[in-house]
Amino acid sequence: MLVFLNGQFISEAQAVVSVFDRSFLYGDGLFETMRVFRGVPFRWLDHMARLEQGARLLNITLPYSRDQLRDYARQLIEKNHLPESLLRLTLSRGVGPRGYSPKGADHPTLVMTLHPAPDANGEPIPQWRVVTASFRLPANEPLALFKNCNKLPQIMARAQADASGADEALLLNTLGEVVEAASSNLFWIADNVVCTPPLNSGILAGVTRLVVLEICQSLNIPTRELGITPTNLPRVQGVFLSLSSWGIVEVTHLDNQPLGRSPLVNKLQSAYAQIITEHRS
Amino acid sequence: MLVFLNGQFISEAQAVVSVFDRSFLYGDGLFETMRVFRGVPFRWLDHMARLEQGARLLNITLPYSRDQLRDYARQLIEKNHLPESLLRLTLSRGVGPRGYSPKGADHPTLVMTLHPAPDANGEPIPQWRVVTASFRLPANEPLALFKNCNKLPQIMARAQADASGADEALLLNTLGEVVEAASSNLFWIADNVVCTPPLNSGILAGVTRLVVLEICQSLNIPTRELGITPTNLPRVQGVFLSLSSWGIVEVTHLDNQPLGRSPLVNKLQSAYAQIITEHRS
Repeated sequence: MLVFLNGQFISEAQAVVSVFDRSFLYGDGLFETMRVFRGVPFRWLDHMARLEQGARLLNITLPYSRDQLRDYARQLIEKNHLPESLLRLTLSRGVGPRGYSPKGADHPTLVMTLHPAPDANGEPIPQWRVVTASFRLPANEPLALFKNCNKLPQIMARAQADASGADEALLLNTLGEVVEAASSNLFWIADNVVCTPPLNSGILAGVTRLVVLEICQSLNIPTRELGITPTNLPRVQGVFLSLSSWGIVEVTHLDNQPLGRSPLVNKLQSAYAQIITEHRS
Repeated sequence: MLVFLNGQFISEAQAVVSVFDRSFLYGDGLFETMRVFRGVPFRWLDHMARLEQGARLLNITLPYSRDQLRDYARQLIEKNHLPESLLRLTLSRGVGPRGYSPKGADHPTLVMTLHPAPDANGEPIPQWRVVTASFRLPANEPLALFKNCNKLPQIMARAQADASGADEALLLNTLGEVVEAASSNLFWIADNVVCTPPLNSGILAGVTRLVVLEICQSLNIPTRELGITPTNLPRVQGVFLSLSSWGIVEVTHLDNQPLGRSPLVNKLQSAYAQIITEHRS
């Protein structure tokens, strides 16, 4: 597999960064993970917009334009013959002097890697069992909106899911609301309204979350952004997660208890599949 | 400068890790920074204890024993002829499959690097101006106690200090209390009691914080662990910070307002200097 690193296509073994790189030292960077369908990254512009906004907040200068990155991504997919894949793009602040201050770190590192898509072998969309993790996300945290390289709470949550044989873990925020899962956004259905926590609850501004809200709008399904307590979540009509790799994944069990199931989830999955089929640009 | 990387001493230019290393991807690692005096890392055992506790929480297996690490550190200091320095030790979970789950990442990366000590040229201990940063730390966060590689809030806080010409930035926790600075622990003096936020307030369990509390005990200075609001902090008798590189640093200004000054700060600095002089082990 070839890797894109700072303008070059190199082998995985050669794809290395300095031990003084700030993303290695402090997680001082951002990333995006996109599903590639038929050679084309899905929702490329949404991912770029989030990356650029995050880079502005962190004050990291993107070393390439959108068009250059798009062309490098195209070349990477072609060179690796992986038209059905996941594309990860990492932007690190790069090497700088010791210490937290970003002063003097002016040469960002940009990496793109390709990974086999989980469903590229024709696997059907799975249904997931989730557990509630004990690690909390700060509410009202502007950094959380972007896919930054500080993912220890998510890693710890995911390890708790692994330990109990679950597929994914839900995280609470510091206000005690269930707000997202380790690598996916949370939705539930209550009174036939599709609900999801608001962006200021401490969650990632997920691109697939946005697609789900757009689908609801186009199908005239009412939506609402609000918080939910761990006590109320098991009482809703249905729960699902959104993520780039799988799209919309239904949750069947929460902490080993079966959840309600709503036909709306399949309806949304079909609409999502339709969007993917039409996706070409 | 030579770097220690996974059992070898190599040049800075050769000291690289894979772009698939999880500390580069997610900040999935821990570190320690120690002041080296006369060739000997100060409070080595306290730093090792914290590293080991953090590694247990993260479920990362340290690839070397304390004694092996101590010997590698000694060699690194000798080979670089830097008996007065800062030693950074980084433990990353290493390379693993894509995704947050730590499953299958079983070969940790261990790096040690040396850096000139800020005061090795005989500079006196500085006095600092600090600002209050807008980034918040989650209270009751077990991950925060350890020096983990997720330092974006601290980096952002430090960038805010840089932008306003200050030396350091204070951070609030999600309960609204001022709890620590970007790379130092917070102390203040009120009614001749040395006060500092408790460990469950979201702070790093700083080694120098521990030394300060030990000094207070040995000098019969009363101490108290409690929170403080941003409104009350400017009203105390004196404010200081503790950190490995400088020890005890007095804070003269908070958000451009001069702070009260207490003779206790100099007394603690003298006691700290005495401990360093006696440090040999």
